[in-house]
Amino acid sequence: MIEIAAQRQLKRLLAEDIGFGDITSQLLGGETGSAYIVAKEACVISGLAYMKYLFEVRGLQIDLHVKDGDTVAKGDKIADISGYYKNIFEVERTALNLLTRMSGITTEVKKLTERVKGVNPACRVAATRKTVLRFFDKEAVITGGGDSHRFRLDDLILLKDNHVKVLGVEEAIRRAKLSSFSKKVEIEVSTKEDAVTAVTSGADIVMLDNMGPGAVRETVNILKKVNPGVMVEASGGITDENIEEYAEAGVDIISLGYITHSVRAVDMSLEVDL
Amino acid sequence: MIEIAAQRQLKRLLAEDIGFGDITSQLLGGETGSAYIVAKEACVISGLAYMKYLFEVRGLQIDLHVKDGDTVAKGDKIADISGYYKNIFEVERTALNLLTRMSGITTEVKKLTERVKGVNPACRVAATRKTVLRFFDKEAVITGGGDSHRFRLDDLILLKDNHVKVLGVEEAIRRAKLSSFSKKVEIEVSTKEDAVTAVTSGADIVMLDNMGPGAVRETVNILKKVNPGVMVEASGGITDENIEEYAEAGVDIISLGYITHSVRAVDMSLEVDL
Amino acid sequence: MIEIAAQRQLKRLLAEDIGFGDITSQLLGGETGSAYIVAKEACVISGLAYMKYLFEVRGLQIDLHVKDGDTVAKGDKIADISGYYKNIFEVERTALNLLTRMSGITTEVKKLTERVKGVNPACRVAATRKTVLRFFDKEAVITGGGDSHRFRLDDLILLKDNHVKVLGVEEAIRRAKLSSFSKKVEIEVSTKEDAVTAVTSGADIVMLDNMGPGAVRETVNILKKVNPGVMVEASGGITDENIEEYAEAGVDIISLGYITHSVRAVDMSLEVDL
Amino acid sequence: MIEIAAQRQLKRLLAEDIGFGDITSQLLGGETGSAYIVAKEACVISGLAYMKYLFEVRGLQIDLHVKDGDTVAKGDKIADISGYYKNIFEVERTALNLLTRMSGITTEVKKLTERVKGVNPACRVAATRKTVLRFFDKEAVITGGGDSHRFRLDDLILLKDNHVKVLGVEEAIRRAKLSSFSKKVEIEVSTKEDAVTAVTSGADIVMLDNMGPGAVRETVNILKKVNPGVMVEASGGITDENIEEYAEAGVDIISLGYITHSVRAVDMSLEVDL
Amino acid sequence: MIEIAAQRQLKRLLAEDIGFGDITSQLLGGETGSAYIVAKEACVISGLAYMKYLFEVRGLQIDLHVKDGDTVAKGDKIADISGYYKNIFEVERTALNLLTRMSGITTEVKKLTERVKGVNPACRVAATRKTVLRFFDKEAVITGGGDSHRFRLDDLILLKDNHVKVLGVEEAIRRAKLSSFSKKVEIEVSTKEDAVTAVTSGADIVMLDNMGPGAVRETVNILKKVNPGVMVEASGGITDENIEEYAEAGVDIISLGYITHSVRAVDMSLEVDL
Amino acid sequence: MIEIAAQRQLKRLLAEDIGFGDITSQLLGGETGSAYIVAKEACVISGLAYMKYLFEVRGLQIDLHVKDGDTVAKGDKIADISGYYKNIFEVERTALNLLTRMSGITTEVKKLTERVKGVNPACRVAATRKTVLRFFDKEAVITGGGDSHRFRLDDLILLKDNHVKVLGVEEAIRRAKLSSFSKKVEIEVSTKEDAVTAVTSGADIVMLDNMGPGAVRETVNILKKVNPGVMVEASGGITDENIEEYAEAGVDIISLGYITHSVRAVDMSLEVDL
Repeated sequence: MIEIAAQRQLKRLLAEDIGFGDITSQLLGGETGSAYIVAKEACVISGLAYMKYLFEVRGLQIDLHVKDGDTVAKGDKIADISGYYKNIFEVERTALNLLTRMSGITTEVKKLTERVKGVNPACRVAATRKTVLRFFDKEAVITGGGDSHRFRLDDLILLKDNHVKVLGVEEAIRRAKLSSFSKKVEIEVSTKEDAVTAVTSGADIVMLDNMGPGAVRETVNILKKVNPGVMVEASGGITDENIEEYAEAGVDIISLGYITHSVRAVDMSLEVDL
Repeated sequence: MIEIAAQRQLKRLLAEDIGFGDITSQLLGGETGSAYIVAKEACVISGLAYMKYLFEVRGLQIDLHVKDGDTVAKGDKIADISGYYKNIFEVERTALNLLTRMSGITTEVKKLTERVKGVNPACRVAATRKTVLRFFDKEAVITGGGDSHRFRLDDLILLKDNHVKVLGVEEAIRRAKLSSFSKKVEIEVSTKEDAVTAVTSGADIVMLDNMGPGAVRETVNILKKVNPGVMVEASGGITDENIEEYAEAGVDIISLGYITHSVRAVDMSLEVDL
Repeated sequence: MIEIAAQRQLKRLLAEDIGFGDITSQLLGGETGSAYIVAKEACVISGLAYMKYLFEVRGLQIDLHVKDGDTVAKGDKIADISGYYKNIFEVERTALNLLTRMSGITTEVKKLTERVKGVNPACRVAATRKTVLRFFDKEAVITGGGDSHRFRLDDLILLKDNHVKVLGVEEAIRRAKLSSFSKKVEIEVSTKEDAVTAVTSGADIVMLDNMGPGAVRETVNILKKVNPGVMVEASGGITDENIEEYAEAGVDIISLGYITHSVRAVDMSLEVDL
Repeated sequence: MIEIAAQRQLKRLLAEDIGFGDITSQLLGGETGSAYIVAKEACVISGLAYMKYLFEVRGLQIDLHVKDGDTVAKGDKIADISGYYKNIFEVERTALNLLTRMSGITTEVKKLTERVKGVNPACRVAATRKTVLRFFDKEAVITGGGDSHRFRLDDLILLKDNHVKVLGVEEAIRRAKLSSFSKKVEIEVSTKEDAVTAVTSGADIVMLDNMGPGAVRETVNILKKVNPGVMVEASGGITDENIEEYAEAGVDIISLGYITHSVRAVDMSLEVDL
Repeated sequence: MIEIAAQRQLKRLLAEDIGFGDITSQLLGGETGSAYIVAKEACVISGLAYMKYLFEVRGLQIDLHVKDGDTVAKGDKIADISGYYKNIFEVERTALNLLTRMSGITTEVKKLTERVKGVNPACRVAATRKTVLRFFDKEAVITGGGDSHRFRLDDLILLKDNHVKVLGVEEAIRRAKLSSFSKKVEIEVSTKEDAVTAVTSGADIVMLDNMGPGAVRETVNILKKVNPGVMVEASGGITDENIEEYAEAGVDIISLGYITHSVRAVDMSLEVDL
Repeated sequence: MIEIAAQRQLKRLLAEDIGFGDITSQLLGGETGSAYIVAKEACVISGLAYMKYLFEVRGLQIDLHVKDGDTVAKGDKIADISGYYKNIFEVERTALNLLTRMSGITTEVKKLTERVKGVNPACRVAATRKTVLRFFDKEAVITGGGDSHRFRLDDLILLKDNHVKVLGVEEAIRRAKLSSFSKKVEIEVSTKEDAVTAVTSGADIVMLDNMGPGAVRETVNILKKVNPGVMVEASGGITDENIEEYAEAGVDIISLGYITHSVRAVDMSLEVDL
């Protein structure tokens, strides 16, 4: 059962797309039939529960043939849908927009995760807050084996370069640690020196921003000696080409903005059974 | 002044990201200062009014240095912002997510439009309903010189392949024309024969789906003879590599899904003046 | 299944009327029974699906004895309802307000449509944007055989007298045609000369505002010679007394504000079976 | 300053009408100017504060030349508006729909009230819950000198014929009086006998439903003897032709459904100053 | 069936607490089981229907073992719940927060009501508008045998000390009585003299504010002679220790703010059956 | 500037209380004046920014004489307000309800915090999720020097007794640590043995539930030896009488439900200057 907040957002998306009614599909009157959703390229699926909800909320029957996280081949059937044609077509675009975006994210994250785990099984691939569909984008990252990172501005203290410019590393962390005990404190630094200061000041996580793999490796080694429990995240300038170098450098987390801000949606379509 | 619906959606985006508060930026207390947004790659800008609203709604001053549709170079300043640091940083990500996505769309559409106009000045590049941020995506397309196409399911009768499979070309158009006189009737076909039937049945616009440039050219010629006033749209399988061939084939509109469903956000950042 | 947007609006109407609870009907406790809705004058029914939803959303059983568009006589039963009395009475007024208004609109539109079709079968009776319950008013017009006309400000370019005063006929149409290809362009004029200019400038629809039947007939003849495909709409000063003269004058559409802004609700009531 | 709930509803009405934008008025770009609203028939005005809010919320200047409750003649200017033409025209229809409906209600109520007061100065004309725009309709009634009656189902215990059929007069009133001390108890009856029982059982208000003026007069006389403090309301079958007979019969309140469910909107228009 | 407004508010409460998901309970995956809610102190229960709705809206089965108004002992089972553990725990806190607060209010009100009825069976204990969860707090008061008093600012004219300071007793009541006939008029006074003026001016209810039991008794006697139908309410400085003295003084209503603004929630917990 | 989400909730609270209008205060017409808010008992203030917003959103001027966290004495003026009386009185109750509740929480938390800091300066007093006004309650706790603890179910993994019953300590923590690296992991235990297992399994925070001060002291000593960085929270059965014993026992956090679920609102009132 999907969350109430997701139900609400999906109904809003649908209502906004429909407006006063799908004036094309209404021409079909009371005719009923069935249709299916088919992958038009290989991908890893995610978002099925949300797609299912969209069809069901308009009174349609839907049978899923795969589950979130499954890899499908071009031509594989994802789901069968039946009911009034006018309702099937009314929902089609909203459902596919969500499914193809989420599956696009999941496919990319799973590929990156496998590559990273191949060289450093403890290393995680993480999203950033550079999302478009916030909740749905984060969920697609998790389905791909990635880490959601921060959901919002209130669930992790993340001192970015701008905060540090204003307060300095030590003062920033000092203030952060006086804040709620229930949140972790992460800080973004771009030099080895700042990284060490961050750890000695009590940061739970240190983000190394825009540092090359070599500098990252060196910094990780130092930091883990200072505090073996500290986590180190690499961020900035990481692509699917150099990601393994960062993983090998020993970081705990590699975060990439493009996996959610510059998604390539996968290709799927809905076809009637006629 | 941006639309009320846009105001509402932007406030919702901001509230969702902030949750119970930006627990990091609150550490800055009442310190004030200024910051600027800078392009980190060349691009065509769009979405400035929305970004401006986001900062202003949190009590900040913002001065724009460019206007929607302007081309900027790497390193160009987009805007200066001043006020409480905590509010600047609280808004930063939501504002940049919107601006970098919209500018990414506009940049791509402008490039395609210029290419198309180079070979066929009357031909338009159009979006589809494969959007993620619906209203904002469509506006970014328009700013890039493109055509918004249909906004929702209620402002154009667009008979897609599935509708036609159920009703047939002639019956589909017959029913459509009995619907409101205030909406155009478009139909998707994939053969020259169906295209001709569509025009003789009274379609205002014929969409040629997944036909090669040669077949498109031949079909356009025939259709324009049958009814010089009919508009012809090419869709399906069109990329930034083959788009000029379609333009040369004489169509009035070329629509592409990827310009809104698989956006590459441009790179920008917000930096404090320190 | 009614649209999600309609569900939402109906639940809002009901919640607003109920407030903290129907303090009268709560006095009935857990007593159950049945009731029926009866027409207290002859009319054409519309809005049944919405009325049904209102009762069902409060846990009641409802059986409809007629369908939208049916003509009923005084004393005809519209529906039977059963369940908790307190819920039946809680919904009664909201349901009847909607049903009696929509049926009032439908009844008037059907009468006008039949009169118009009697002299010009191709001519349509259309609503305007002078609505009170927007979506529901437009649907009632359609059920009566009328045309919904424009739903909102974004689904038809309709250049009214004020726009034309600012831009002139030709410039207004020129700009309109550069806007999205997916929307029709209509222009309001009040002279034969402007009407001709409108057609030669490319308007899809010409609205003749406040012109007498004679001038309308003459103008229609000229316009259809200039462009046989152009549609002509008569508007302004049309009543149920002179509407046939306009229909005979050869227009394609006759639009009237009063059918939605000055509705006479039909008389119906809900009676318990006791 | 209008209520927050009214602000919210007006913004919703405007947003719903505008959708993705007023695609016609946008053609006017940044041109500014002024316009005025003019009465096209004599009427009593109401709803000015709401109309003003609608224009102001879109960044326009508006000067009112009349105030709620004023009687205006055909041709009188109601207000001057200035700013971007595109915003003036975007708001025009929503503002006029509200103003012409509310003024229509107020005009009718004022006429009825004057007629009633002419024969019985203590007698009030009241609305029912047969409203379409609930809050706005009730306010228009009050501006016309009428009484709002019940706002919702939770601010008065009003035992209607159906409640009485289930419980009987005495039991219904007995239960009602055990409910909150802060609400009045009204009961609808259609015979003199039931009216007397109602008063002796403790009803605060007795509604005489569908009784002729003669029977009403006789019943009022009896009831006032039983309890001089009881209020008597006449309802059902009252029109602008027989209303004075009911007033003369001595009732305290005369309620009519048609003043809000079958409103005749007055005629007004917005004209640019050109 | 709980009201639509309550459904909406409960879903909002749940969605706000859950955010992006109950990241703890999600760790339980698809495991199912059962749990029960148990009273950890003796109390009078209320809010069961709302608690039930919260569990059901997340797909859980719930069986209630008591009903609103029942007195339970420490250790008594209130309800059994079964389904996915992750959903049971996700709802737990929101459901208990409501149930323990409402039952806390009901328990206190029932105790006060019994004490008051013991010395004056006609006297009612009433809430004020000093509520936190408005609707739910008022309902808990009613379940405890109390009177809801005013729901909002629009269902009773209640002239408080500040209104009276501005207008004076007589003018305040005069204006109030010209307002809608459907609302009662109550006035707050603090002297015997003002109380008498209020009754002779036509107040339906007189609230004696911050007067001692002796002065209250004396004033009640006088007022009831002036108008036996007037109701008298005592308010201000009344506690569970002196409430019987006020009841004995002959007032019709005793209102207390603390029963809703300073609630002591009762102790309950949810335990899994393991 | 208060958060957008807070603005929205405050406007909703106000609109719900006002309904169709404050029918009492409307009797004051256009009269203006001033009023002040006064403490009627000593307390620590919080919620001023929210109270200020409520008055300002209704067009009133307000000057604050104190700031959040200030201790005020009985009779101290909190704020002066001026404008239309009708608006001042319309807002009065909603504003005071919030201010007196928040100040009640802050007063209690400050007292507890001072007591705790007196014996253990590093120890924090924390709220739980047993809130009624969620965001506002948490903010009041923070203003009193307390710790907000978890905001929602998605910002801390908190394995409660029920989760542990299903999964066991080790498996629960193992799964939790595979979840997002950005969230802390806390676990509730009630024995020394489970506490040690929790720390060795990697819990960031251990909550000792319903253990006496002696057992808590012993367990803290052991846990800090196993992992000096682990945080220990005491919860359950802690009151303002025994809280210092828990602080002395060496825990880092003491959480109490009653400070938000059983609040005693402080006494304040609004008086007009007349």
